[in-house]
Amino acid sequence: MPLTDPDRLFPTEPRLRDLARALYEPVADLPIISPHGHCDPRWFAENARFPNPAELFVVPDHYVFRMLISQGVPPTDLGIPRADGGATETDPRKIWRRFAAHYHLFRGTPSAMWLDHSFEHVFGLDEVLSADTADAYYDHIDAKLAEDAFRPRALFDRFGIEALATTESALDDLRWHKMIRDSDWPGRVITTYRPDAVVDPEFEGFAENLDRLGELTGEDCTTWEGYLNAHRARRAIFKEMGATASDHGHPTARTEDLAPADAKALFATVRRGRCTAEEADAFRGQMLTEMARMSLEDGLTLQIHAGSHRNHSAQMFARHGRDKGFDIPRRTDWVGGLKPLLSAVGLEPGLTIIPFTLDESTYGRELAPLAGAYPALRLGPPWWFFDSFEGIRRFREATTETAGFYNTAGFNDDTRAFCSIPARHDVARRSDCAYLAQLVATGRLREADAHEVAHDLTYRLAKDAYKL
Amino acid sequence: MPLTDPDRLFPTEPRLRDLARALYEPVADLPIISPHGHCDPRWFAENARFPNPAELFVVPDHYVFRMLISQGVPPTDLGIPRADGGATETDPRKIWRRFAAHYHLFRGTPSAMWLDHSFEHVFGLDEVLSADTADAYYDHIDAKLAEDAFRPRALFDRFGIEALATTESALDDLRWHKMIRDSDWPGRVITTYRPDAVVDPEFEGFAENLDRLGELTGEDCTTWEGYLNAHRARRAIFKEMGATASDHGHPTARTEDLAPADAKALFATVRRGRCTAEEADAFRGQMLTEMARMSLEDGLTLQIHAGSHRNHSAQMFARHGRDKGFDIPRRTDWVGGLKPLLSAVGLEPGLTIIPFTLDESTYGRELAPLAGAYPALRLGPPWWFFDSFEGIRRFREATTETAGFYNTAGFNDDTRAFCSIPARHDVARRSDCAYLAQLVATGRLREADAHEVAHDLTYRLAKDAYKL
Amino acid sequence: MPLTDPDRLFPTEPRLRDLARALYEPVADLPIISPHGHCDPRWFAENARFPNPAELFVVPDHYVFRMLISQGVPPTDLGIPRADGGATETDPRKIWRRFAAHYHLFRGTPSAMWLDHSFEHVFGLDEVLSADTADAYYDHIDAKLAEDAFRPRALFDRFGIEALATTESALDDLRWHKMIRDSDWPGRVITTYRPDAVVDPEFEGFAENLDRLGELTGEDCTTWEGYLNAHRARRAIFKEMGATASDHGHPTARTEDLAPADAKALFATVRRGRCTAEEADAFRGQMLTEMARMSLEDGLTLQIHAGSHRNHSAQMFARHGRDKGFDIPRRTDWVGGLKPLLSAVGLEPGLTIIPFTLDESTYGRELAPLAGAYPALRLGPPWWFFDSFEGIRRFREATTETAGFYNTAGFNDDTRAFCSIPARHDVARRSDCAYLAQLVATGRLREADAHEVAHDLTYRLAKDAYKL
Repeated sequence: MPLTDPDRLFPTEPRLRDLARALYEPVADLPIISPHGHCDPRWFAENARFPNPAELFVVPDHYVFRMLISQGVPPTDLGIPRADGGATETDPRKIWRRFAAHYHLFRGTPSAMWLDHSFEHVFGLDEVLSADTADAYYDHIDAKLAEDAFRPRALFDRFGIEALATTESALDDLRWHKMIRDSDWPGRVITTYRPDAVVDPEFEGFAENLDRLGELTGEDCTTWEGYLNAHRARRAIFKEMGATASDHGHPTARTEDLAPADAKALFATVRRGRCTAEEADAFRGQMLTEMARMSLEDGLTLQIHAGSHRNHSAQMFARHGRDKGFDIPRRTDWVGGLKPLLSAVGLEPGLTIIPFTLDESTYGRELAPLAGAYPALRLGPPWWFFDSFEGIRRFREATTETAGFYNTAGFNDDTRAFCSIPARHDVARRSDCAYLAQLVATGRLREADAHEVAHDLTYRLAKDAYKL
Repeated sequence: MPLTDPDRLFPTEPRLRDLARALYEPVADLPIISPHGHCDPRWFAENARFPNPAELFVVPDHYVFRMLISQGVPPTDLGIPRADGGATETDPRKIWRRFAAHYHLFRGTPSAMWLDHSFEHVFGLDEVLSADTADAYYDHIDAKLAEDAFRPRALFDRFGIEALATTESALDDLRWHKMIRDSDWPGRVITTYRPDAVVDPEFEGFAENLDRLGELTGEDCTTWEGYLNAHRARRAIFKEMGATASDHGHPTARTEDLAPADAKALFATVRRGRCTAEEADAFRGQMLTEMARMSLEDGLTLQIHAGSHRNHSAQMFARHGRDKGFDIPRRTDWVGGLKPLLSAVGLEPGLTIIPFTLDESTYGRELAPLAGAYPALRLGPPWWFFDSFEGIRRFREATTETAGFYNTAGFNDDTRAFCSIPARHDVARRSDCAYLAQLVATGRLREADAHEVAHDLTYRLAKDAYKL
Repeated sequence: MPLTDPDRLFPTEPRLRDLARALYEPVADLPIISPHGHCDPRWFAENARFPNPAELFVVPDHYVFRMLISQGVPPTDLGIPRADGGATETDPRKIWRRFAAHYHLFRGTPSAMWLDHSFEHVFGLDEVLSADTADAYYDHIDAKLAEDAFRPRALFDRFGIEALATTESALDDLRWHKMIRDSDWPGRVITTYRPDAVVDPEFEGFAENLDRLGELTGEDCTTWEGYLNAHRARRAIFKEMGATASDHGHPTARTEDLAPADAKALFATVRRGRCTAEEADAFRGQMLTEMARMSLEDGLTLQIHAGSHRNHSAQMFARHGRDKGFDIPRRTDWVGGLKPLLSAVGLEPGLTIIPFTLDESTYGRELAPLAGAYPALRLGPPWWFFDSFEGIRRFREATTETAGFYNTAGFNDDTRAFCSIPARHDVARRSDCAYLAQLVATGRLREADAHEVAHDLTYRLAKDAYKL
């Protein structure tokens, strides 16, 4: 018996289900555009085999292991590295068995959907993962991973990926991207300019990061002008490695548009290393506007991921470091936050700014009205912990009536779990078609138009918004 | 093929659809009560023909033209007047063609629904608007507009409007309303007292507006007592022109109930013209409570439209002035904001206060609990950018369980697009019947009661709340 | 004709309805776990008859009488006691008639559902309550209440209640609980430790309450150490009366984790009786963390009910005192608020903290991500004015995808209306099964797993979270 239902996520009422299926079929196998995510470019550069099932599915994915932690499983039982370098589980089979024994925790979650999809469609498994089947699963997946057909480039091709963007720090040497570019493999894996480490005065090692930025570019990063030029130089290098976008992870949506002298003075303050939290926040906000201005020059699309309270648990951060599943969303004020940036460049039709929110209450109230007015804005898809049917439904229901479809930016998978990519895009395609079927059946959209919209949501809007 | 589906907005499951249709049929043709909106009374006073299709559907409606602007169409291509008096498109056919060529942008939006409804039901068109059909549309509509049957009064009668409230500034001379009253036409078009220009210290020309208020009423508007009496005098004049309500558009829901001496001192400060933003906000809040007290005297229903950040784009405001589609909702604190007003007069059963929100997160959390407790409150329908099926559904689902149906105020179309009135009321009737059908089919409401509720939501509640 | 539909709250699409019914049937008659509520323990201690229909259904239930007040019925017409001891209605039949005459106000509300359920299933009535049937209803219910089978203990047994927790002030003498324990009746009625009166510096009589706490425990409540020990002593007494949990009703979710010397100093300030609002808030926040630490010692589950603006109407409070239906929810910041507490003890797997929110916008944004990460958190069911189908649906749809089912705490009825208990648990069971059926039919959950989850949500999760 298959792990996944061929009609999953479609409406249950027969007429609606038929409509959804009819809309889905022509888009089901369209190429995948993945314009934002966190895959490791090294996979595609070296094309080495993935080490084992635990390191493919559990250890690197904080959305998987945090569910076990939330039910009392110690992080070290799952092989999470310790900040003090102390002992953690190293036997991947033991980690896998613990994961399997707790698999019921994922019932009803998008993680269960994409894991089952990968188990079935990538690895050909057809039994449910559990403590009983843990070893059989491990052996089966491990054997597959040894085959050439399961190396990163082979899977990339099999998944039908037309373009995949990874995300690198502004200080990254982009060596893996160079290796991919210089190889004979035609897969399109591109980078994205993510300068948080040199834009956020509260980032660990900010001062040293700026020194390093100066070394990399030959610019004088002790001056505001030099610092901005260093960004320009790095953006140009990233563009050479295929980048069509920058990305910015900020705690709030605040932007600033200070007079040049004030911006210069603020830079001097944060450069000195003793700024207040307020000054740090203002500086991040100013830099979003500076980045938007650079986008007007070099054409990079500007992505803003705002509103995550990172590393919420002080204990977890002390024991295991950053990005361990304790990023928690907060309320986000997009209307007040983006006003300085939008007043500066929001009417520029040549600019594309894509906001991503974790605060769903802003979809209908703030983001759809903003995107439905400003030419520079295209709404990002529902940034959330998983690729979620309900999340996509709420996004469409809350934004379409105000902003329409054409002020949105298509789908992002935003994943570091490579095997989940086909599953996530499939969820988005099915969820969108389910929504469109509902519109058609209730007289809100003509069926012929719905087919065109389905294609646009799946393929064209992402290509346009990211210039891919 | 008709542009609109006769079963539009009804649920798709056959039993539910039959129930919804059965609830809808008896209310489908009830007279229209339109107790709040922005139609121009001059239309009904002069009864001249509408000039052309572009000026009927595109130029005056910022919910239509902002969608085109959001996709990069320059406002001057759509005939939007410039603040500097410079050139803008004057050929209505060219404007119409641009609108038609971008009509796909409205897919899935309520604008598309009411436009199609008007095209079909008001003008008898049956082809989809597009670049190809733009000229045929233009010629057809333009010819109709030349007929007597398409003049404002004829359409008013044909639409089955029992009462239509417009909204005028406290300083308006109400000449068009006088003309309507003095004519032999029996249509009921009434005014609404909207004193923002003389209540909001941040309104353009506030000091001059107060001088003008003094001239109009013969009251001394340099004193707090004279100023309040001037409001009383204007309210009395508006009542003579049929007003049964006042309306207040405020950036927040803040109210105040200051001691008389403090209120007097605050008035002196704002009158002087140099108040802080905080003082301006406090004054607006105080005036809501003063208006509620006047409502206790003269019986006008008090409407509060709070939470819109008006003219968000500084550039658009500078180039084209106010109300150009860049009003963006913000979070609104109704619980804290209304407390002073409600503590003063909230238990008065003779008073009716109707709050309208753009912050849907307050429906269930704040507004329904407040309306479900205070006798003076009746919830306004979902104030939003369009008359939206999803918006109405969310409103009912979030408020009914706490406040019931009888603490709501029926439907408002709130439109300046005259031809959209029948379409919008039809959307509300269908959406409410779809919701009621769901309640009946899941054992939450008896069918006989649902019929009574459908009639109340369509007709009686609005008449009661506005004393029409 | 029965008052309630046997298929109520199930989806209407036939396949879904069959699935929901199949999931519901095995859990429909499981014993009731009621781990949090406000029943009066005296009922079960004395086992006297309930006095009359009005005092059973109307006078004590502010969710019932506030609906009538909201439509202009004076509180004294409903027998609500006056703060000044003045006259209020004393004839229960007159109160009942007024309630009956306004019963249409409850259309579409959960109150109507549970009242009809009680009328039919507890009292055997089959006509709709109205002005016409008011007297027949009154006589019928009054006669039933005179029967032994309608005394509190008999109903408790008939309702199939396995455990019922009441809520008592930290200063309560628990005499009724002692009487129940010392009786020969085996029903499990337990208390809950609710220390608001001695934890909230803004509570009426806070200083005297602390004196009383000192007397009750023999601890010196003028010192921080003595005060904490007094809590420990009271918690131990409550545990003897069966308590497995404490409960805390706070205006915000703020917590603090001050250094010991700072906590001591803050206590000295609030003890002196002249603290600021900010200090009172900080003290309440500090006490949540202290209570969590005591929970680590004594094993009591910690419940937090945060975000209610109590006694919103100053007039109603002055005329009729606290808890008269004017508690209004406000926005709640759980992410910032709980951070100090969670950083102190959030990773403790032996601790259970159950947050309840009235701010639904935090379900998906804040509470599900927190509960999906911290081992100490289990999400409380949707705390709201009634047991609401839509509320439960929104809760599941917003939390399951992020936190799964196993980071939730089962159902609470949270009621003071004893006869509503079976109705409310039935609503929860039906609503959960409707949700699960939807997951199964759309391929998001296997049917066998759904049966297990239905049982867990109905029974096991509440027992586990409350150690019952």
